[in-house]
Amino acid sequence: MLSYLEASSRKVEAALKTFLPTLDEKASTLHRAMHYSLFAGGKRLRPALAFAAAEACGGNGSLAVPSACAVECVHTYSLIHDDLPCMDDDDLRRGCPTCHKVFGEAVAVLAGDALLTIAFQILCETPVSPRYPLRRQIRELAVSAGSRWLIGGQVQDMEAEGKETSASLVRAIHLRKTAAMMRVALRLGAMAANAEPWELRLLSRFGVALGLAFQTIDDILDVTQTQEKLGKSAGKDERAGKATLPGVLGLEVARRKAQEYTRKALDTLVPLGARGESLRSLTEFLLRREF
Amino acid sequence: MLSYLEASSRKVEAALKTFLPTLDEKASTLHRAMHYSLFAGGKRLRPALAFAAAEACGGNGSLAVPSACAVECVHTYSLIHDDLPCMDDDDLRRGCPTCHKVFGEAVAVLAGDALLTIAFQILCETPVSPRYPLRRQIRELAVSAGSRWLIGGQVQDMEAEGKETSASLVRAIHLRKTAAMMRVALRLGAMAANAEPWELRLLSRFGVALGLAFQTIDDILDVTQTQEKLGKSAGKDERAGKATLPGVLGLEVARRKAQEYTRKALDTLVPLGARGESLRSLTEFLLRREF
Repeated sequence: MLSYLEASSRKVEAALKTFLPTLDEKASTLHRAMHYSLFAGGKRLRPALAFAAAEACGGNGSLAVPSACAVECVHTYSLIHDDLPCMDDDDLRRGCPTCHKVFGEAVAVLAGDALLTIAFQILCETPVSPRYPLRRQIRELAVSAGSRWLIGGQVQDMEAEGKETSASLVRAIHLRKTAAMMRVALRLGAMAANAEPWELRLLSRFGVALGLAFQTIDDILDVTQTQEKLGKSAGKDERAGKATLPGVLGLEVARRKAQEYTRKALDTLVPLGARGESLRSLTEFLLRREF
Repeated sequence: MLSYLEASSRKVEAALKTFLPTLDEKASTLHRAMHYSLFAGGKRLRPALAFAAAEACGGNGSLAVPSACAVECVHTYSLIHDDLPCMDDDDLRRGCPTCHKVFGEAVAVLAGDALLTIAFQILCETPVSPRYPLRRQIRELAVSAGSRWLIGGQVQDMEAEGKETSASLVRAIHLRKTAAMMRVALRLGAMAANAEPWELRLLSRFGVALGLAFQTIDDILDVTQTQEKLGKSAGKDERAGKATLPGVLGLEVARRKAQEYTRKALDTLVPLGARGESLRSLTEFLLRREF
């Protein structure tokens, strides 16, 4: 499965390079900062989901190239802003110094802004899809990345810090901060392939289950792994008093929850039959991450 | 002319309230911060330009409501981020404490992000225009607000601080930081009214001249006015070592430049005849600001 992720990663990185301002010796600090964070070697999980969703709906994965790039730009912007000193104050991301550590806070804020902005420009390149006009796709991206989902989740996450939390609050934060962007990656990929409405509904349910599984596993890894293995600061959640599932339910129950969500995600895929193969293998790969 | 601005302002504020999440007692901190900055009583110059552009192209101003709201959201987000401690570090904006002073830096960054995001969602509500598909309009907004124009201008502005500057560098910064968003307000308003291509070209030239006039006057007012009159910190540019036209050329030459740009803007409007009346009065109103 690593190979599907690797192939997706190569495809999305090649495309991102064509969508972004070129990085030559005359490139501005801003453009260097955008490239720095975007090409810092993430897993490219969301682009892989967009490609696999297009395939699951009977289309060619390449149809989802603009959706995949747009979602990855939004994801990277959100990481840059989350890492800022006034938010999670993180020095390491994907094994490298965070954007503001290299370029300073002001440029990091602006590089994030520019990646968010270019995401909408890139989504304009999505192929015409009979069932899903661009209007609808732009709206879906804006809603998922907006104040009720991605950004709202970040605020909720910060506000929960150091407070008494519950499993349902943690779930709400995971839904907004993590699952919403995975769901929209899948939906936009599917829309690019002119998915049937039932396929879109199925992929939404899958995205939610996968997002919850993924974030729960991430929180578990933060407790159990070393910084070297994670590529970012370890044990950070506990020190920051973050609301996490292991924090609320303990490691063992959190592990069971992660398996439950993963199982649910896999079950959701059944009606897709063989076309859901890439999504299934991606999910199984995520579950196999050591935790 | 104040009355055209006032009427535009009422129209855009009423519409923004329908587009934004409602502000009831259960509203999140994030939504309160978005409302706080968006309804802090700006001039709403860019929305007025969008309305007047639609009228100048023979359409009803109301066609431009989504364009006007989208551009105002982008403008407000850019002010929130520009005011952050890591950028211009401003405590006052439109006569009130800046967003980060009231809500803290993290929420201010995120409220800005959310306003930028919702701008694209709002632009999706623009009426169908035979000559200008939504794809083109979203792209124009993203480009104007992006790393080559608005955001690039902010970086250039910061990088010029305290350095030797020239009139041409100041002009480049004004073009990117100020004129680009005025131009796109005009263009999107005109597109909503299905403008003829020559009208769109004319409005672009007008927007550039108006933007340069406006920013030059702003820089002059920063030197000559008190904080009370400005509604924001006065004399700030000089203290911060900002690249401004009065700083490079002196007050008298800067005043002449402002008049030159304004004259150019007015001349550009001539071919529109009577339909350009609102744009002409808006321009004259701006020139009459005390400087």
